[in-house]
Amino acid sequence: MAVEKYDVVVVGAGPVGLTLSTCLQRWGYKIKHIDNRPGPTPTGRADGIQPRSLDLLQNMGLKRQIMTHEPAKVYEVAFWDPNSQGIHRTGTWASCPKFIDARYPFTTLLHQGLIERVFIEDIEKHGGQIQRPWTITGFQNDGKDPHYPVEVSLAHVDGTLSETVRAKYLFSGEGARSFVRDQLGVKIHHKDPIAHVWGVMDGVVRTDFPDIKMKCTIHSDAGSIMVIPRENNMVRLYIQIASSTDPDWNPRKSATPEEVQARAKEILKPYTISWDRVEWFSVYPIGQGIAERYTLDERVFMGGDVCHTHSPKAGQGMNTAFLDAVNLAWKIHHVESGFASREILKTYESERKLIAENLLNFDAKYAKLFSSRIPSAGEVAGATTSTSSTPMANEPTENEFVKTFKESCEFTSGYGVAYNPNTINWSSTHPAQSPLFLSYQKGTTLRTGRILIPATVTRVVDANVVHLEQEVPLNGSYRMYVFAGKPGRTNKAFKDLATYMSAPTSFYSSFMYKDTSVDRYHETHNPHSSFISICTVFNAPRSQIHIKEMLPGILAGYRDHVYADDVWDLRVPDAKAAAHTKMGLSEEDGGIVVVRPDGYVGCVVKLVEGKEPCEALDSYFGVLLGKKLGGERATL
Amino acid sequence: MAVEKYDVVVVGAGPVGLTLSTCLQRWGYKIKHIDNRPGPTPTGRADGIQPRSLDLLQNMGLKRQIMTHEPAKVYEVAFWDPNSQGIHRTGTWASCPKFIDARYPFTTLLHQGLIERVFIEDIEKHGGQIQRPWTITGFQNDGKDPHYPVEVSLAHVDGTLSETVRAKYLFSGEGARSFVRDQLGVKIHHKDPIAHVWGVMDGVVRTDFPDIKMKCTIHSDAGSIMVIPRENNMVRLYIQIASSTDPDWNPRKSATPEEVQARAKEILKPYTISWDRVEWFSVYPIGQGIAERYTLDERVFMGGDVCHTHSPKAGQGMNTAFLDAVNLAWKIHHVESGFASREILKTYESERKLIAENLLNFDAKYAKLFSSRIPSAGEVAGATTSTSSTPMANEPTENEFVKTFKESCEFTSGYGVAYNPNTINWSSTHPAQSPLFLSYQKGTTLRTGRILIPATVTRVVDANVVHLEQEVPLNGSYRMYVFAGKPGRTNKAFKDLATYMSAPTSFYSSFMYKDTSVDRYHETHNPHSSFISICTVFNAPRSQIHIKEMLPGILAGYRDHVYADDVWDLRVPDAKAAAHTKMGLSEEDGGIVVVRPDGYVGCVVKLVEGKEPCEALDSYFGVLLGKKLGGERATL
Repeated sequence: MAVEKYDVVVVGAGPVGLTLSTCLQRWGYKIKHIDNRPGPTPTGRADGIQPRSLDLLQNMGLKRQIMTHEPAKVYEVAFWDPNSQGIHRTGTWASCPKFIDARYPFTTLLHQGLIERVFIEDIEKHGGQIQRPWTITGFQNDGKDPHYPVEVSLAHVDGTLSETVRAKYLFSGEGARSFVRDQLGVKIHHKDPIAHVWGVMDGVVRTDFPDIKMKCTIHSDAGSIMVIPRENNMVRLYIQIASSTDPDWNPRKSATPEEVQARAKEILKPYTISWDRVEWFSVYPIGQGIAERYTLDERVFMGGDVCHTHSPKAGQGMNTAFLDAVNLAWKIHHVESGFASREILKTYESERKLIAENLLNFDAKYAKLFSSRIPSAGEVAGATTSTSSTPMANEPTENEFVKTFKESCEFTSGYGVAYNPNTINWSSTHPAQSPLFLSYQKGTTLRTGRILIPATVTRVVDANVVHLEQEVPLNGSYRMYVFAGKPGRTNKAFKDLATYMSAPTSFYSSFMYKDTSVDRYHETHNPHSSFISICTVFNAPRSQIHIKEMLPGILAGYRDHVYADDVWDLRVPDAKAAAHTKMGLSEEDGGIVVVRPDGYVGCVVKLVEGKEPCEALDSYFGVLLGKKLGGERATL
Repeated sequence: MAVEKYDVVVVGAGPVGLTLSTCLQRWGYKIKHIDNRPGPTPTGRADGIQPRSLDLLQNMGLKRQIMTHEPAKVYEVAFWDPNSQGIHRTGTWASCPKFIDARYPFTTLLHQGLIERVFIEDIEKHGGQIQRPWTITGFQNDGKDPHYPVEVSLAHVDGTLSETVRAKYLFSGEGARSFVRDQLGVKIHHKDPIAHVWGVMDGVVRTDFPDIKMKCTIHSDAGSIMVIPRENNMVRLYIQIASSTDPDWNPRKSATPEEVQARAKEILKPYTISWDRVEWFSVYPIGQGIAERYTLDERVFMGGDVCHTHSPKAGQGMNTAFLDAVNLAWKIHHVESGFASREILKTYESERKLIAENLLNFDAKYAKLFSSRIPSAGEVAGATTSTSSTPMANEPTENEFVKTFKESCEFTSGYGVAYNPNTINWSSTHPAQSPLFLSYQKGTTLRTGRILIPATVTRVVDANVVHLEQEVPLNGSYRMYVFAGKPGRTNKAFKDLATYMSAPTSFYSSFMYKDTSVDRYHETHNPHSSFISICTVFNAPRSQIHIKEMLPGILAGYRDHVYADDVWDLRVPDAKAAAHTKMGLSEEDGGIVVVRPDGYVGCVVKLVEGKEPCEALDSYFGVLLGKKLGGERATL
């Protein structure tokens, strides 16, 4: 019997594995996805979706399904410190302060199992499934089949069934205990040697503690608690039970639910608390760890908790997992589609490991502060208050914990993710060189390796007011935003761009569909190629934009992606063209923004007349492809 | 065998019947709901949800389910008129212009069957069901059972099964052909004797007509078309086939799909159009009609198309049906709960018939203009352009049709619904009199009989930024918004209000739950009574609002309904407390706004120290109840 072949074998159906499968299943890959549990997470576990992750879920078309479960939303964090009566609130701070330009400036709290189900339904809708309870028993990149170099052995957890398949890639999203990581011999590096034992309890409570529906960090003389509101009127309490810095440290130290409740009652005094019901309770040791490698051969990859573990309190675990998966998914897709050389697969580790390291650094600092006893009020001045009218107020009298928290808001909201310059993220040292490339504060406020700044515009075809950054769904394509400035002024530049892009060896023409017999009249995002989706934004009122007359050549295929930059924005109140202005581009002359399929800016190019803008793009994409693009342009 | 008894028998599962059932099923009533079709509407029919209706669906918690179907959204309407080349666009206009303070300034287009299913799922979730295909065969209000005075006979449409039940109320939502209306002998009054035959076609098209994704009214020398974008890349075309004003008028005139397509091709020249597929096609005669009565005895009621028929072009049918049902639902609920006398049931007809008459007047004018030939451009100046930056621009050179359209935007968006003064909508002639009652432009910008002005505030318990008008769901309760002004200044007035409301015969205490043994700790909207839900809005930053200290007595039960008026609003940019200011109330002294369970303002009362504010509310609610409330207050 022939061995079954898959594009990717995914092990583990937690957030990272499910996100990877969801992307690749949608983009047409053949996936074998197994998980060793009988079903999705029944209760507890990760639950915090950060603002940036909500953007991502929206981009995947899954936000509405998440919100259907009526999750709790955290807009502010309250800080409570000890005083002579017990505890008192010393201040609050926005969870995602206004200096961050976020569409959804709150953290969404929902039990992991419900989130997993949203992904699973999407996978099933696209013809995939999760095979349960199955586990991985062996694998090797033996290259016996050059197209499917990895052999993977799988078995039912009860040992009654097994199968061996071949795959182009193997991905481990197994969680902190990973068979794949062990087999590869990849070491976990402990950034911070301190380990902790945590208790966590989800339940419905009765209390006169006023901030029970807020995220709170509570330090009292009896210990510390973190309060996280949940869906269904629940609340989660995190309580640290032991730390390796304790004199009697025992990593196997445990606690019963009753002990944790008694501790909580003590910490919350003078307020009272009781439980109607407890939905989930767990005690678990957490050590900070990061895998030394995310892949050894760019065939067997790992992500999520396999690669990084840390304390749960900053609510980052699931969010980091989402981004690991999306980062890898589009790179595999572009390699397999012939849009990029295998070299870009190396950037998965270099990009995502940096973020994990930043996370661990933050977490170590935060966790350490959280578990240290805070002096009673009076010993130090407390955190000061931030109101929604003055969220950027900066007061000097904060304790170290509050200060760390505030400094970290951009990072914890997900908007601080910044990938370093590399082949994908243009910089002045990038092999592609042209005087037209713009960089941060030099012609644009966009930064390569960071997400596109959000902007609200009017879609021309139907006059809908839309979020520009969401207009191209997560379809695996690069996104090119042509900010076309003032139509009269940029007519020729815009037309030239379309002309040179039509040249047979341009970055655009090189990846056009080979099969032109397929009817793509109704294909709005990818009329000519799945390599790229193109949006054009004019600095003009919607009623003055005439698509047929103003969109030259191939660009006319993107008629549903033409926008008027005519919506006023509070953040740039004096701008005439808010989207242009927010990107730091000239309202008159515009500019071209290339965004990676995962939403991060790749490069920004000046829009001028002639062949040069297209040449700059040819050279940028040529570096990714590993061969020159646009070579024949001179003959045009 | 005992005859089965129901609170309400509902006949017809179109929008009006389903909305009524959904409300009453949720509020605990026993409903028998039948429909003579085998299932929900399979294709076509009504499809336009106006902005105000979307507010209502949101308030019912059904908006997300509607939006899951990715409906089309109409933000603008384009006007096309004949010229020498065929047709040309003479202008566009916002569907819901900015002078209307709407949360969702667009029309939502979705096929009626999908909307029906959303309601049906909700009914089933609450234990109800639609019995199909059954029909009504007879009924009489014979009063043989004083509690269930109406006998209703029902039968399976194939005649094999039948049953006779008793009910407190019978509601007919049967549509334009109504057995109940015929049996009651209620006449249809034709406001406008002109009748029309319409063709309507839903399908997927290919065209170079640039506004195919907009709502368009197209007048050409070859006839007129209305274009309505739909979900799933579909478009609906309305084409008038015949009018009773035609010399050869024949109400049975018909047309084939091919004829309608040929006509459309002719009208759209110089643009081309072809159909990939046609999902639905229908030709139907429409006459304007309004029922003389909506009920004869306040036991057997009618609503929706049973009571009013008109042309479909303004997209009002389903929206009027929603509002008919909600208007009746809460009145039945309040009568059956002992909160109001049976007299208020009379206001169903007086309120809703007025709205239907306004609709028919609008429709007659609009339909007449639409079907008259518009002179070619040059003969008159065309409509002018509105851009989103200047939506209120008012240009003098418009034709009559465009002018009527613009004038009617408030009405067609649903925000123009204005109920006249009566026992529920306070006015200076209301039996309840007190110098504290405020009225439009005299102490408030709110108008009784119109919906509460929307306002964004911060919820204190969880710091969530919320839409105040949506904070109380459609739970059948009155809503009392205490705008508490500056806390320091209004402390005593606020405390006095709570004190007098606690008096045993006050409007509040009179309707408190009799059964106090039920645990209502987690009941956020109705902790003490299902008669009313109370929201308190302070003019203070969220961090300065301390619920335990600031909410006196019974008001403390509404801890989840305390808000900070600290969110900046573009419509009142200079306000310190935007919600107070939008309501036209003093930012310092606040005021009390009573909103009917269906969202329309009932009365507005000044917030001052002493017993008078509570007395004013006692007298207002006493009129509804038909007996004096608050009589023992003097003894406090």
